Amino acid sequence: MKIENPNPFQWHFAERASQMQSSFIREILKVTQQPEIISFAGGLPSPATFPVEIMKEAFDKVLSDSGKVALQYGPTDGYLPLRQWIADSLSTGGAKIVPEQVLMVSGSQQALDLLGKVLIDEGSKVLVETPSYLGALQAFSVYRPNFVSVDTDDDGLVPSSLHDVAAGARLLYALPNFQNPTGRTLSVARRHELVETCARLNLPLIEDDPYGALSYKGDPLPKMVAMNPDGVIYMGSFSKVLTPGIRLGYVVAPLAMVRRLELAKQAADLHTSQLTQMVVHHVIKDGFLEKHIPTIRTLYGDQCQVMLDAMAEHFPAGVSWTKPEGGMFIWVTLPKHINAMELLDEAIKQKVAFVPGSPFYANEPQTNTLRLSFVTVPPERIRAGVAILAKLIADRM
Amino acid sequence: MKIENPNPFQWHFAERASQMQSSFIREILKVTQQPEIISFAGGLPSPATFPVEIMKEAFDKVLSDSGKVALQYGPTDGYLPLRQWIADSLSTGGAKIVPEQVLMVSGSQQALDLLGKVLIDEGSKVLVETPSYLGALQAFSVYRPNFVSVDTDDDGLVPSSLHDVAAGARLLYALPNFQNPTGRTLSVARRHELVETCARLNLPLIEDDPYGALSYKGDPLPKMVAMNPDGVIYMGSFSKVLTPGIRLGYVVAPLAMVRRLELAKQAADLHTSQLTQMVVHHVIKDGFLEKHIPTIRTLYGDQCQVMLDAMAEHFPAGVSWTKPEGGMFIWVTLPKHINAMELLDEAIKQKVAFVPGSPFYANEPQTNTLRLSFVTVPPERIRAGVAILAKLIADRM
Repeated sequence: MKIENPNPFQWHFAERASQMQSSFIREILKVTQQPEIISFAGGLPSPATFPVEIMKEAFDKVLSDSGKVALQYGPTDGYLPLRQWIADSLSTGGAKIVPEQVLMVSGSQQALDLLGKVLIDEGSKVLVETPSYLGALQAFSVYRPNFVSVDTDDDGLVPSSLHDVAAGARLLYALPNFQNPTGRTLSVARRHELVETCARLNLPLIEDDPYGALSYKGDPLPKMVAMNPDGVIYMGSFSKVLTPGIRLGYVVAPLAMVRRLELAKQAADLHTSQLTQMVVHHVIKDGFLEKHIPTIRTLYGDQCQVMLDAMAEHFPAGVSWTKPEGGMFIWVTLPKHINAMELLDEAIKQKVAFVPGSPFYANEPQTNTLRLSFVTVPPERIRAGVAILAKLIADRM
Repeated sequence: MKIENPNPFQWHFAERASQMQSSFIREILKVTQQPEIISFAGGLPSPATFPVEIMKEAFDKVLSDSGKVALQYGPTDGYLPLRQWIADSLSTGGAKIVPEQVLMVSGSQQALDLLGKVLIDEGSKVLVETPSYLGALQAFSVYRPNFVSVDTDDDGLVPSSLHDVAAGARLLYALPNFQNPTGRTLSVARRHELVETCARLNLPLIEDDPYGALSYKGDPLPKMVAMNPDGVIYMGSFSKVLTPGIRLGYVVAPLAMVRRLELAKQAADLHTSQLTQMVVHHVIKDGFLEKHIPTIRTLYGDQCQVMLDAMAEHFPAGVSWTKPEGGMFIWVTLPKHINAMELLDEAIKQKVAFVPGSPFYANEPQTNTLRLSFVTVPPERIRAGVAILAKLIADRM
């Protein structure tokens, strides 16, 4: 018997639910996934870099050797050998990170949610870069903070600008390496200055580092967590160096903090797949990433250069853009009067897509900015797409 | 250079973080996992039931056929063929559930967190059974509700008791099948009454159903979501019928509700592993569960009977217990003056463990109750453990 409800439900949602919005990017992606569109809008890594055979062998091996353990419930903090590997890989420059400081999460987006949960009350001041990663703004927004934007220039976040805004702030969220969306890198001098400033101000510094390994040339810059493990919360991910679909990331924090995050994670989803953690540990334990990551760097670096060259050739004077030394994104600044959202409408008609910059601003947006990704587009299509964009921009100058 | 922080961090946590507690059960499990302990404390399914070979073949197949898709980012709502399968499996008794109503989650604990996030404001009234599932109390607690306990008897939750308490409540959380912790089942008549009462009271009814398939004899009872898909939010899981370590569950809700849950999930962890979803779909699409679930029912039913027989033989008069018709738990009520927490201390000294009932009560606990699980303990150890417990109880009568 199915009952007829005479009175359709009037849902009474929590106040925080009223502020939830879908990521603008995920909405754009729905429009731009037709194959005829040259899409610079994606934030997805290139599937050409996924080590499918290696992953397949690892699943087979782990399930053959330890299937019943891998498929059973596991500890909330994660698979110890993998946490040990992560702790060791971060113990550089004299810093000593221990596995107890490492919490495995279901992709680093979950770390953002857990950090918001344990650090943000309604109205709490939260400091973010200008612009900042949209997914972080979205995760923190659930807890209804008061976002305050921190100044950023070509060397990344400006530490001296913190003094005016840090009082009472619950956290500073920073993406020092090849930032999403700008592709900018925080200089080494700035890293030291930032870590010291945050320590003096008793301001928890979140170092989100999904792209750090993807430097096109030279070694990655030193991590801030190694400069002050007592005051920096580090977020890492296997999404950009292995594959994102398995949803595996980690957060490294001082013990008092990681314990809270672990409690929050226990309530949120008990634990992250044991099987996935054991597989990833099996894949990386003998140095696979050291051989694999350079192939990603080369692919992305080459495609980035193709895009930069095409932009230099086609883009009119008055347009500027970042020259990333790693990662997946270039950030473009148009003349002030050109609105990137309107440009996108025109571009999609001509089968080119990108992400307008506005959604990346926590406060007042710069509407003349946009983000381009080059990692999933072949060189000839990068050139074609940039030429089309350049023409559209020139038409509006 | 590592900076020395002269002033160790003073973390300022969110108010909600001060209420987070580790699950008492997970703490007990740490003590009771030594092999010499006969543990009735676990809530874990028996690894003997995990179809390791089938899972291994499925990972191999999915990675071979669709590796690059399975390992890439995926949609927040989940893998459509799996959502279609779930919708079809719930469209019984004239109800029509569509895949758009299904949101895949990283284990059904995540559904509890997302429901709390979109439905509970600080101080919101939340109705729960007496006793109720600890993980739900833990997940909802993060959002700081005012829990109100609803009366329960041997037939499960008492619908008529809702009239006095429903005003202004945001939700009623119920586990109708072989409830954790009591093993009780809500009668069919009560199901109809409950669904109608909730519809009349405009009270969202959450039907959490991890154990529904595990009835020892006879068909599972009708699901409440099929009686009123407009007013019931259904939670399902692959943890108890396939394997828990992969972290895969789902929530089925009216469209207005599922859309909010999807937004909350996007902010919480973007999406659940595509690979896992594709593998599970591959495993179950041709009827595997219809052959597999009966083997779990037989194993659990036989071990439940061993425990019930041992209890009838050894437990002194004055002790009562539930006789589950499915699932994983038996609930024991001791004479009022015996405190199960104190009994546990004694029992552990004699190498037997269980879970005291108090943590399962949202409000005033009944300290003379305890939960026993029989699914991972072989029959001879069930008999030995029950005899030891019986002696300890008799000593206190």
